[in-house]
Amino acid sequence: METLSKFFYPESICIVGASSKPKSIGYEILKNIRDYGFKGRVFPVNPKVDEILAYRCYASIKKIKEQIDLAIVTLPKNIVADSVKELIEKNVKAIILITAGFREVGKEGAELEKQISDLIKKNGGRLVGPNCMGVINTLPGYKLNATFVAEKPETGSIAFFSQSGALGAAVLNTIRETDIKFAHFISIGNKADLNENDFLGFWQKDDNIAVLTYYLESFDDGLNFLLPFIKGEVEKPVIVLKAGRTESGMKAASSHTGALSGSDKIVNALLKQFGVIRVKTLNELFNTAKGFENFPAIKGKNIAVVTNAGGPAILCVDKLEERGLKLARLNDSTKEKIKSIIHPEGSAENPVDLLPSGDDETYKNVTALLIEDENVDAVITIFVEPVMVEPFEIAEAIYNNFNKDNTTKPVIHTTMPMPEFWVRYKTSSKLKLPVFRNPEDAPEILSNIFFYNNRLEKLKADRGEYHELLNRKVTNLIKPKGKYLTQTELNETAKKYNLPLIENAILKYDELTEINDDFFPAVIKGINEHAIHKSELNAVRLNIKDKNELIEKAKEIEKSFEKNGLKAESFLVQKYLKIKHELLIGGFRDRSFGPVIMFGAGGKYVEILEDTSIRSCYSSRNDIYEMISETKIGKIIKGVRGESGVDIDSLVEIIRNCAIMMIENPAVAEFDINPLAADIDNNLYVADFRLRTI
Amino acid sequence: METLSKFFYPESICIVGASSKPKSIGYEILKNIRDYGFKGRVFPVNPKVDEILAYRCYASIKKIKEQIDLAIVTLPKNIVADSVKELIEKNVKAIILITAGFREVGKEGAELEKQISDLIKKNGGRLVGPNCMGVINTLPGYKLNATFVAEKPETGSIAFFSQSGALGAAVLNTIRETDIKFAHFISIGNKADLNENDFLGFWQKDDNIAVLTYYLESFDDGLNFLLPFIKGEVEKPVIVLKAGRTESGMKAASSHTGALSGSDKIVNALLKQFGVIRVKTLNELFNTAKGFENFPAIKGKNIAVVTNAGGPAILCVDKLEERGLKLARLNDSTKEKIKSIIHPEGSAENPVDLLPSGDDETYKNVTALLIEDENVDAVITIFVEPVMVEPFEIAEAIYNNFNKDNTTKPVIHTTMPMPEFWVRYKTSSKLKLPVFRNPEDAPEILSNIFFYNNRLEKLKADRGEYHELLNRKVTNLIKPKGKYLTQTELNETAKKYNLPLIENAILKYDELTEINDDFFPAVIKGINEHAIHKSELNAVRLNIKDKNELIEKAKEIEKSFEKNGLKAESFLVQKYLKIKHELLIGGFRDRSFGPVIMFGAGGKYVEILEDTSIRSCYSSRNDIYEMISETKIGKIIKGVRGESGVDIDSLVEIIRNCAIMMIENPAVAEFDINPLAADIDNNLYVADFRLRTI
Repeated sequence: METLSKFFYPESICIVGASSKPKSIGYEILKNIRDYGFKGRVFPVNPKVDEILAYRCYASIKKIKEQIDLAIVTLPKNIVADSVKELIEKNVKAIILITAGFREVGKEGAELEKQISDLIKKNGGRLVGPNCMGVINTLPGYKLNATFVAEKPETGSIAFFSQSGALGAAVLNTIRETDIKFAHFISIGNKADLNENDFLGFWQKDDNIAVLTYYLESFDDGLNFLLPFIKGEVEKPVIVLKAGRTESGMKAASSHTGALSGSDKIVNALLKQFGVIRVKTLNELFNTAKGFENFPAIKGKNIAVVTNAGGPAILCVDKLEERGLKLARLNDSTKEKIKSIIHPEGSAENPVDLLPSGDDETYKNVTALLIEDENVDAVITIFVEPVMVEPFEIAEAIYNNFNKDNTTKPVIHTTMPMPEFWVRYKTSSKLKLPVFRNPEDAPEILSNIFFYNNRLEKLKADRGEYHELLNRKVTNLIKPKGKYLTQTELNETAKKYNLPLIENAILKYDELTEINDDFFPAVIKGINEHAIHKSELNAVRLNIKDKNELIEKAKEIEKSFEKNGLKAESFLVQKYLKIKHELLIGGFRDRSFGPVIMFGAGGKYVEILEDTSIRSCYSSRNDIYEMISETKIGKIIKGVRGESGVDIDSLVEIIRNCAIMMIENPAVAEFDINPLAADIDNNLYVADFRLRTI
Repeated sequence: METLSKFFYPESICIVGASSKPKSIGYEILKNIRDYGFKGRVFPVNPKVDEILAYRCYASIKKIKEQIDLAIVTLPKNIVADSVKELIEKNVKAIILITAGFREVGKEGAELEKQISDLIKKNGGRLVGPNCMGVINTLPGYKLNATFVAEKPETGSIAFFSQSGALGAAVLNTIRETDIKFAHFISIGNKADLNENDFLGFWQKDDNIAVLTYYLESFDDGLNFLLPFIKGEVEKPVIVLKAGRTESGMKAASSHTGALSGSDKIVNALLKQFGVIRVKTLNELFNTAKGFENFPAIKGKNIAVVTNAGGPAILCVDKLEERGLKLARLNDSTKEKIKSIIHPEGSAENPVDLLPSGDDETYKNVTALLIEDENVDAVITIFVEPVMVEPFEIAEAIYNNFNKDNTTKPVIHTTMPMPEFWVRYKTSSKLKLPVFRNPEDAPEILSNIFFYNNRLEKLKADRGEYHELLNRKVTNLIKPKGKYLTQTELNETAKKYNLPLIENAILKYDELTEINDDFFPAVIKGINEHAIHKSELNAVRLNIKDKNELIEKAKEIEKSFEKNGLKAESFLVQKYLKIKHELLIGGFRDRSFGPVIMFGAGGKYVEILEDTSIRSCYSSRNDIYEMISETKIGKIIKGVRGESGVDIDSLVEIIRNCAIMMIENPAVAEFDINPLAADIDNNLYVADFRLRTI
């Protein structure tokens, strides 16, 4: 932690590869450090010149006598390693390697990258990069812009972590237009050492930071990213723009920094489960961050809209509903009061329409009435500039009267003015609270903040269950065998984890006559260790009435195996179920996010139905219940139109036991229960079970 | 048509309600007309003053001796009617009524609105509005800004129709930033007379218009909006932002202009079916319009991306795939050539990464190579401003070399520069082709253009079928009865329209013994004209083995009816099917879009499965095939994993016959075939059929 803080709060910086050539990176970084007004000491290293930009230049790192808190290396890649050694000798702990051409260009680069990173870590240092564009701290005591983008960002409380240097640059390039106010910015590059997880921990403890924003192309260790959320160690909102959502996007991401992204479905499900806000665009990323930074928290879903213009209000309402929020039902008394102060032809129904003549007083008074209404959780004000009203006055009337200091409900202003407004607002507004441009912005912000607060409470309520799961010991009841479990092993596993495996008998051909009559009507399956995909072997016969038919079908199966050059080593006999619903429980171990569990519609149409939902195996019963409810089959099995339904609590326990099996047995690579059958009496049976170990 | 053209191409305008009071609408419109430089004559009407803004003012309409092509009325609503009468006497055909307070404020306003509109129409005139904000024609010979937004839009070839005046104002307010170039803009208000359909026809024939854009809150007559598309009379792209997508959004829309919007699912399905481009935001609306206006058509789905920055390229690729486009697979020779001209550590794979050092020459040369590759249908160039390269030069290098005049494939440029670029580009670029700001913009544009071209070809191919359906005569085989058809009537209808209704017999209790043995195993249903919702009456018994059981079950049903105070008038006996799949065919008559047909998953879980797709009854076989394929059940019944499937051609014919039934019988309000059963031999049976007439 000590070292991490040096990246943002150094008292002294050394630029290894400082250059006197304008437009070169070694020059531009130094220039930006100077222009932005860095408060600490600066040591450029360049053997060829005495001075750059009025800074005294050092011929080598050794020549610097003072302590160096942070080193920024911009040298060509073939001479980086030597300089790093010198930095280590000088006991520099925080190193940013700007230079590109490592892992992202191939195997050789990857090896060099690992070599350098190992060297630094072995000596107790930490590395940011390589292939990155530096760091910014806007706080008054530091004013550090150690990037090559010559902007002078204003101070705020947002931390921004970018896996893409260019994307970071794109954000900085437009900062005068977007009015994003950072505290910290860091471009992380190839993540040879430090990654998103490290800064998640760091920023949680840094009081200068209120909101964390991430642009990511991969989660290097998704499970460890999420653990602080699961454990309740995260107390600030974290917003993630994860690119590489689609298959091609992921391919593009991996060619870009050489990183592999996790499957997007898992990313989506698990971030949501643990309260990480995932957004789709840069606009949504920073608008949401501004929302957290500037407005009080929202407590419910009921939104009031005040507008002077119908069209934009409708676009806003469409977005509200798309995002799961609602138009508040106003109290009659609120409506009466509103009616008395607005234009007689305006509308006192939500959205409240002031008509184009709606002025600053009316906006203020109507908003005040809406906030007082207990059915309203937040207010969105929308203003389209007409001829007769000045947009600046509306924005001021709203934000001067409704902000964090004097109201507990968020009021968010959207305006569609002529361009002159923005200049005036930027220069003359006292509060400078963010004003938004699109009718869809405020609904996005409010829904993200609502999601976050809601999740936070849920996570808190379930915390005990999470800790119980996290504290479970690895039992290794299931051993690594590199293949599928046999039917006998499956029977044992099901017993241990209380899975209602349908009663079955594994019999040799000669033993089939001894089978108990209770099994009929029965199902018979031929078993051969090498034949897991039974349907191709035609190895299953259903609805067998009696022993005679059983023997007959067993013979057929034997023949079918022989045709495929296999032997039916034994037969699995089960009771034939009258299946009403075919469900699916599956689980696997994701390389980044660890063990995950899946529930959904089972049977042979699984791939087409695509009716499944995913969670981490570290799931509370509430999580599992929610997972079931997210699927269509989950709604159907609860009972439709007076039908009796499946006992959902029992289903939750079965799924939970599967999750525990994954947690306690790291040897389980994946498993499939398909179908988990619900019979006509709504009893649940594991009718087919497969499990592959690592 | 003649009259419609007067709204945009008047030689003389009269402003009824012109005012000398700044900030009033009657003043601002006149001022904008003057400031934008209208080429025709202007006649302000105001009895109190002699002159406004140096225009001679007339005391009344009668006092104007010259001909008036267009009248703009801004008077208070209580004196509008009288002035309209004077305009009619003066033989003015084109009238824009700006004044608000009509239909949108209640019944009285609606009546006044109708009165005025009827008056105008009766005398051969046409009305735009009321409750609107006017009209703009940017073309050099006219230069008419008869709105109260004081902007001076540049000339382009886009027509923009806005149902919301405020939204139109919002677009105009920001036009200097968004660089949208209109030919025509019209704010339509309450649509008392003229609506979207009228201007669709008008603009199709106006050579100054290349692309039509609409902001709509309702389709007043959706079927007539679509007919020109179905008939092949539309030759210009039409892009629609239809607000009121969600339930609350629709409510907000109807409180706003008093219009009722059609169900969003139908809007979505039918616009898509007939090649109308539907977008979700204002940005997408105008970006797409700019795309059509400025770039050549795209012929396939394969897109190449050139970038100097990984992150934005990944966001772009994510969007490409989300929108159904693909990253082009480049030819090996293309890749070789690219490799030889880019930075050695860049990437010649698509997306091609030039690294931050990529300059104008490299962008140009790489783009040229990509365009030559026959696997590439379009190129997206992305540029993030680094220190060393000037964004203006990149934009110029791209658009000066790749535009409509010298290449047949679209090349679209996205840039993320410092704000200074935009000013320089606007003032110094020769071509002024649109440059986009977000990595997601170009994929949205290209996918919309691709959709349009693709649809156009499909519609052309199916034109014969459409005409055949449009030419069908109304047969009125089904008569309006205001209720559900009886079983006998259903049997007749099924026979007439070749629907495979399962063989059935309608028998009195005493006749049940006479039933043919072929019916067993059978299903029996109790029938009573007042009992349509059979499941509540417990009126159905399945899988009946023989006559004895049939009689027994009939008795049970009789009792159950008696309990509900009803009589089982007769019994429907059908063969009991071994059902493999339950499908659904439904149809109804939408108030705006006319007869529509639906296919999907049937059975009792219909509402939860939500696996249905909708089309107009004017559907080609291709349309119906596509409708089936859009559903999950449609994929399942084709046969999964070697299963034999349902004969899709037969299914298409059944659905088509249902559609024809709707077309030929305007008395059919709605019908439901649920389930259309596929038995284990893949035969299709109409197992339950209901039809309600108007």
